[in-house]
Amino acid sequence: MRRPTVIIFDVNETLLDLAGVRSVLVETLGSADRLAEWFLRLLHGSLVANETDRFRSFESISVEALSAMAHRFGLELDSSRADEMVAAFRSLPAHPDVPVALDRLRRHGFRLAVLSNGSSIGIAMQLENAGIADRFDLVVSVEEAQRFKPDPAPYRLALERLGVPSGEAVMVAAHDWDIIGARNVGIGGAFVSRPGSVWSVPDPPPTIVGDDIMSIAEQLIEMGFPPGQ
Amino acid sequence: MRRPTVIIFDVNETLLDLAGVRSVLVETLGSADRLAEWFLRLLHGSLVANETDRFRSFESISVEALSAMAHRFGLELDSSRADEMVAAFRSLPAHPDVPVALDRLRRHGFRLAVLSNGSSIGIAMQLENAGIADRFDLVVSVEEAQRFKPDPAPYRLALERLGVPSGEAVMVAAHDWDIIGARNVGIGGAFVSRPGSVWSVPDPPPTIVGDDIMSIAEQLIEMGFPPGQ
Repeated sequence: MRRPTVIIFDVNETLLDLAGVRSVLVETLGSADRLAEWFLRLLHGSLVANETDRFRSFESISVEALSAMAHRFGLELDSSRADEMVAAFRSLPAHPDVPVALDRLRRHGFRLAVLSNGSSIGIAMQLENAGIADRFDLVVSVEEAQRFKPDPAPYRLALERLGVPSGEAVMVAAHDWDIIGARNVGIGGAFVSRPGSVWSVPDPPPTIVGDDIMSIAEQLIEMGFPPGQ
Repeated sequence: MRRPTVIIFDVNETLLDLAGVRSVLVETLGSADRLAEWFLRLLHGSLVANETDRFRSFESISVEALSAMAHRFGLELDSSRADEMVAAFRSLPAHPDVPVALDRLRRHGFRLAVLSNGSSIGIAMQLENAGIADRFDLVVSVEEAQRFKPDPAPYRLALERLGVPSGEAVMVAAHDWDIIGARNVGIGGAFVSRPGSVWSVPDPPPTIVGDDIMSIAEQLIEMGFPPGQ
């Protein structure tokens, strides 16, 4: 991989801790252990939306996923509970390593961007509430492309906004599919193996892999200052 | 919906009971409650394969999903355990209502077909082991289209094989996304609300909805004999 000038971050699970919605899921579904299933339903729903040209917000699909699970467990889902979940989703805390790692990367001259499946307003609130909004030069929602990752369109949109060729960017994500999607348009990859995140597709993992963002940051910094700095 | 001449069935969950793989998941992951998550990982993986042009068999993706979950729970996955799961997946029992309902539909002159995300060999073994292989006039795997449902390609392939216009076919599935995919190419829909299956997308559900295949069959039969019979 060429030394990147721009680092594009995924948000949910990669920068922010999804465990922040666990308590709402517990209250709604009566079980502490439905977080992974809910997020997978959300992800699957987003790709079904792509496949069938039915784009709608990630938040809407997250409520549909909650509703499907409530039904499965024979529970009523009132709209205030759904609102509560969206609010929790928009208030996820950053993983503890994130703010310091982002600061280090900025000091080393990298431009930082965010590309998330969330809506524009949803991402803005997430970054603000997590206290990391001021670290990014650019925030891109899939909303404008009307296609969720890993469709090529949102990645291309991000590159266009950043004004860089794909070879100057690296995508940092805790999901293999997100990195595969980035690679498909020529963006480099860095995989954060958060607890529960595992590289499980046949494509080889990136050379940059780390337990947390700080570890990824150190590896990127070791590649030297970005060109032009 | 026009009176159909051909009924196209989804297989997993719709005709066959996924609970048949639960015991392997329990042995592998140490929990009785991972079935939904595993199947969702499998479905999500299939759509990521579509989005990134990395088609591979549904069985391969099912093993990747098991492997990701084993990792999440800190467990080793040996290949014999993976083989065991594929074997269990190929030996799922039919839901009890299925054989009689299929026979009723055949007696009423409908042509019956299967369109599944499984591989050709996988579907053939599933139908054989469930004792319902002889009920179908045609079995279509997404394999040949190299795209998983709900991409339009496999539905179009099935129509081509059946030699009928989309308006003469109805897709019977326990998944809303499967019916949305069928509708996108003009095929009618019938939704089986198996326990745990709920219509949870904004599109309206089909007019034909039932708890089991027998209920769906009765409603189709009430529409009269197919044209030409």
